[in-house]
Amino acid sequence: MISSNSSSSCRTEFNLIQVNGTWTRQTGQCKQKEGKSSDAKIYENKTDQGVCWTVVSPIVFTYRVIQCKDLLDPRNDTLLWGHLGDEELKDTTSNSKPVKRFIVIDKTVHELYGSKVSQYFDERGVIYKILPLTTTEENKSMELVTKILEEVHHLGIDRRSEPIIALGGGVCLDVVGLAASLYRRRTPYIRVPTTLLSYVDASVGAKTGVNFAGGKNKLGTYVPPVATFLDSSFFQTLPLRQISNGFAEMLKKVLPALLHGEAVNIDMSFMVYVAQQKGLLTNDEKDRIIQCMLGLELPVWHEECSLALVQKSLRERLKHSAGSVRMPLPTGLGRAEIFHDMIEDDVICQAFQKWTEELSSFGAPPALGEQ
Amino acid sequence: MISSNSSSSCRTEFNLIQVNGTWTRQTGQCKQKEGKSSDAKIYENKTDQGVCWTVVSPIVFTYRVIQCKDLLDPRNDTLLWGHLGDEELKDTTSNSKPVKRFIVIDKTVHELYGSKVSQYFDERGVIYKILPLTTTEENKSMELVTKILEEVHHLGIDRRSEPIIALGGGVCLDVVGLAASLYRRRTPYIRVPTTLLSYVDASVGAKTGVNFAGGKNKLGTYVPPVATFLDSSFFQTLPLRQISNGFAEMLKKVLPALLHGEAVNIDMSFMVYVAQQKGLLTNDEKDRIIQCMLGLELPVWHEECSLALVQKSLRERLKHSAGSVRMPLPTGLGRAEIFHDMIEDDVICQAFQKWTEELSSFGAPPALGEQ
Repeated sequence: MISSNSSSSCRTEFNLIQVNGTWTRQTGQCKQKEGKSSDAKIYENKTDQGVCWTVVSPIVFTYRVIQCKDLLDPRNDTLLWGHLGDEELKDTTSNSKPVKRFIVIDKTVHELYGSKVSQYFDERGVIYKILPLTTTEENKSMELVTKILEEVHHLGIDRRSEPIIALGGGVCLDVVGLAASLYRRRTPYIRVPTTLLSYVDASVGAKTGVNFAGGKNKLGTYVPPVATFLDSSFFQTLPLRQISNGFAEMLKKVLPALLHGEAVNIDMSFMVYVAQQKGLLTNDEKDRIIQCMLGLELPVWHEECSLALVQKSLRERLKHSAGSVRMPLPTGLGRAEIFHDMIEDDVICQAFQKWTEELSSFGAPPALGEQ
Repeated sequence: MISSNSSSSCRTEFNLIQVNGTWTRQTGQCKQKEGKSSDAKIYENKTDQGVCWTVVSPIVFTYRVIQCKDLLDPRNDTLLWGHLGDEELKDTTSNSKPVKRFIVIDKTVHELYGSKVSQYFDERGVIYKILPLTTTEENKSMELVTKILEEVHHLGIDRRSEPIIALGGGVCLDVVGLAASLYRRRTPYIRVPTTLLSYVDASVGAKTGVNFAGGKNKLGTYVPPVATFLDSSFFQTLPLRQISNGFAEMLKKVLPALLHGEAVNIDMSFMVYVAQQKGLLTNDEKDRIIQCMLGLELPVWHEECSLALVQKSLRERLKHSAGSVRMPLPTGLGRAEIFHDMIEDDVICQAFQKWTEELSSFGAPPALGEQ
């Protein structure tokens, strides 16, 4: 058998150092003192069948999150320079280059704050382009990313020193993040969340993304923004429904691990019925778990969670899990196990019927005011 | 002045540890022993104007490069399992999941090796889809990336354990790399270079990319393949011109730093004339540098390097450099300096004219056979 995993092999570890501008391998034994060295390592493994090099290369991402007031006040440096540390700031502002910024702004935010944004960059003497875009879940697509990239390329920015700024809700921040990740293989970008939901969710972290082929965030990257600027005064112009939306997300993040989020709880409630149908739980145990959920004022049923949706979701999960799903099911009070087999379709149907019969009257989640 | 870079501030360092499934901050002083800890650090800086958190997060990329024979021999494990270490391999092959692979193959490579690739996966009992594509510099675009993504999504693969395999030249490897980087925010991919040029160039490293808005590799990512498999037997079917193309790239990589590559040398030769025109070099110094280049049998002029191209390139460079180019020019024998001002157009024109008059007879680079 021809195999790269042969046992008769000879393994050597190399460091990397720069000699005359070229990265060169060097064994641990003979350390050269001069020249820049890399944190990466190369392990060489020679066998009768060939050579295998394993490269281990660490990369460090550094980003800033700044919470402040009056972000759009021209006297506030944050929007223009907050992404830089003190040393970098000195280097950048000491040269006489004109400063350039590309700003993508959600259309609604533009109607409310567009003139303040223009005024900020005008007063700071910046060359800038503001691109207002409708950013909704429906047009969160590669087409929108391409549109941004065309405009960025048209303005022309320096991919090291001129970050792209995104002002808007989660969709806007995600889409701009993806565009910036792709432009010249990574251009820095800044997130300015203007909704409560994006302030507590999309604002922090490295996820960018767009929807694709009917799937949510199927395409994207893990590239953190160079900075996120948080200014809660944007909430003054938010409709009440958007504020509730943000509170729901915050609520999800502070519940114990077992019960995080309404959607997750509805899923868990259904799975309790599946487990009972499979004989993993007694009827009494099922009832006690559901009573516990209701006691915590968590939703246990939702009218949009139809049998067709459940079946479709399970098929999708199977398709993207190399043929073997990981299905956690309760097996008693305070106990759960991972099952690898697909749940039989008749079990799903029977569980769904019973779930709906017993719980549909609890369908409406409590209004925020009642809590 | 409202500033985030105030000097009256209070700085705290935090580590991150996982408590009940949630990442929690912890100061260096009170170290908790239990719970998973992260390599990331958070620095908190409070000022009168607000709070600034700086997150420093290291990420490690590990990838394998395997040089072997008979990659398409069904008895050779490399194509199917070479991307895994011994431990990972044990875990993966011990479960009974069916193995699935998505393979993108250059159309010409498919004509030559398609049946061998099919035979390999058939004999190994793999569920697979082979997608042959015309992969040329002309169609190296986001459209091609989207086409791959649609087919990948249609097959459905597990984004942790089922790498996408690219078989072809540099364009094929770059395009598949970008598609894989984007799919579900990063799906592992494998590079199998089949040309000499891609074997020595695109095969190793993290760059993926496509052309955009008339620019070469304007969009892309830095995401290394999980593995690269090198099998020189593919070269048996390469036309001679492709082999020369690869040799030119290898030649470029082993020249001293000052003279790397024919194209770079032609650029340098022109810049010697620019420097002389600006009075930075004497006519004698200019002649001595050019004689040195000719003595090294390097090309010093090229008919496609027209005045219009030079002017367009300088404008592009200015546009993408925040208004200030970094222009290295020779200022004597063995000396150079970086100039930040744009070179005057009449200097460019006069230098170009003299350069062409004196050097166009040296325009043809030496044929490979004559070296």
